This record gives sequence, structure tokens and C-alpha cells, in this order.
Amino acid sequence: MPNRFYTFVGGNAGRWRVDDIKSVVGHGVEPVSHVEIINENLAEAPSQATWLLRGVTSNQRYTSRSELDSLKAVQPIIGRKEATCAAFIPITKSLAWWELAQDERREIIESRSTHIATGLRYLPAIARRLHHSRDLGEPFDFLTWFEFAPSDTSSFDELVEALRETEEWRYVEREVEIRLILDQK
Amino acid sequence: MPNRFYTFVGGNAGRWRVDDIKSVVGHGVEPVSHVEIINENLAEAPSQATWLLRGVTSNQRYTSRSELDSLKAVQPIIGRKEATCAAFIPITKSLAWWELAQDERREIIESRSTHIATGLRYLPAIARRLHHSRDLGEPFDFLTWFEFAPSDTSSFDELVEALRETEEWRYVEREVEIRLILDQK
Repeated sequence: MPNRFYTFVGGNAGRWRVDDIKSVVGHGVEPVSHVEIINENLAEAPSQATWLLRGVTSNQRYTSRSELDSLKAVQPIIGRKEATCAAFIPITKSLAWWELAQDERREIIESRSTHIATGLRYLPAIARRLHHSRDLGEPFDFLTWFEFAPSDTSSFDELVEALRETEEWRYVEREVEIRLILDQK
Repeated sequence: MPNRFYTFVGGNAGRWRVDDIKSVVGHGVEPVSHVEIINENLAEAPSQATWLLRGVTSNQRYTSRSELDSLKAVQPIIGRKEATCAAFIPITKSLAWWELAQDERREIIESRSTHIATGLRYLPAIARRLHHSRDLGEPFDFLTWFEFAPSDTSSFDELVEALRETEEWRYVEREVEIRLILDQK
């Protein structure tokens, strides 16, 4: 079984250099110059770390079979050579969101906010990996990691703008956006 | 925020005395005489513990609003004075299950296996608390805790029998059943 846990370590060292950090909603995270991604559930921060955020990849929570087949047909892997730009977006949704029933959340995510269809429009340009954090007792509910080529930066800007205008995003009570560039040396 | 983590500690001490342990599918757990439940995510086993299993209560994964309203209208709390019998049932589902899309899992759970409707028929007799463990890296995917009065034991037997005959249960690859009695001293 591959390890589904990932730890994102913010500090002054790491493979990804921070280009920009902004607090979109709620309070931000401490500024750092680099982020390293470790495919483990690190219990303790490595030395030089300013913060560490953990998440686990998991089963689909909302995606239907037909949506999953459409996504799988075009979604790129993480780690393409040309994908030297990345965005790391931790978000937390409100208690009101989590207390909704499954059909109510699905209705908001897809029928009313077209989250899955919107993401699909930006494939295969934007690679994405979703990490679940809420049930680990972490400060954020989700950590999403996106990778793309520099020439796809404006497409990525468009994608996040579109999602932030949806009904689903009204339930987001904390969101941080960290833009990164692969450190090639 | 209440702590949603629970650790089930099997050993030779605890509030619940083990009446019977059986392996329903796959390999079992080491026999113990007592189980204690701690409302924390214990990192280490207390002394005298033989095993410890962790889980976290979480949002509904399949239940619709109408089902949730029906359940909430009749479901009893954990800890009723008369509920001196309990069952602790850890289960693991196969990788094939987890790779299904959300609509496929919902279809199997409710449309074809009537899991939610079956549980509802045994309310308010049987109290239940579901703990999610898979994304914590635990050996089981779910830990379910049931409580009932001694006079409702045969109802409980019926409920678990009914669930085990469903299509959903064909995806269960490990299941242990521990029956317990509240230690009144």
C-alpha cells in the first residue's frame, strides 16, 4: 500500500520556493521562504520548520462514476517536468457545512457550484492533489496542491477565481493561498 | 469544539467487561477481558493495554437530509442507564470498495443494501456511534460502537445478521465482533 499521508513543511528550505503568500479568508499562516513536501505523516516538525500541515489522500467524497471517468481520462500526474509552478491552498469550511447531509453538500458542490465540471475545464493543464485534514485534527480541513507550467498561470488564476465565486465557497471560513516555483538548482 | 477522537483500549481493565470476541471475517484481535473507551487520540498504549484502536466521529458520508431527519428524531444517546450491553465491531472494507465513485457506494449502501433504513428499524432500541479510522492509518476502516438494554439483545443480533447478508457486506474483508457488559461495580 502506498503511503497516503503527506506533510507540507514551511520553513527556510525545501524544493519549492515561495513566490507569494496571501490570506484569502480568515487568518493566514506565518510567512516562509520555502515549502517541502514529505510523503509521510510527520509527528514532529523537522528543525528549521516554521509550520507543518498534514493531510491524507482518500476516496472520492462527491465525484460520481461518470465524472470520475471523465477526470481520469485527462488528469495529469503530479511531477511533470514542465510543471514548475505550484499553488498550495489550505482551506477550512464552517461547521454549518459539515453538519449538512451528504445530498445537500453534493447539491451545493456540483449542481449549484459546478466544482467538478469547472476543474475538468482546466485539465490537462492543471494537476491537482487533494489532501483531507479535518479528521486528523489539523487546523485546515483540506490542503490542495496544484501544479502547472508557467504558461498556464493565467488559467490557474481563472480557475481559483471561478471557484471563489461559487455558493460552495460561502462556507469557506479560512483560506490561504501560497504560490510557489520549483527550485531548479 | 468537542474532541471527536476516541481510543478503544483492550486489556485487563476497563469499564466494559468482554463477554465474547469473535472473528467474523479475516483475522481477529488478541483476546482481552476488558475494553475502556477514552475520548482522546491516544498516541501510546496505556500500561496494561493489549491493543488500542482509534477512530474519529465525522460528517455524514452517505446519509441524505430526509434520512438524517428520520434518524435524529429517534436515535438515542450513548450512555443510557439501561444500556448495559454493548457491541464493538471494527471492520475493514476492500480496496475495490474504496475505489468506487461516491454514487456507486451510495447505490450499494442504500439502494441495494438498505443499510440506513435497516438501522432505522432498530431505533430507538440500539444506540450507535460510528468512528472513522481508515484515514488515520489504522488497521480497521471503521469502529462501530453499539449500546442496548439486555432485553434488546436479540434485536441487535437480528440487525447485524441483516447487515451481513447485504451486497455492501461483500466488500467487508475483515470484521471482528466484541460483545461487552457494563462493569457495574
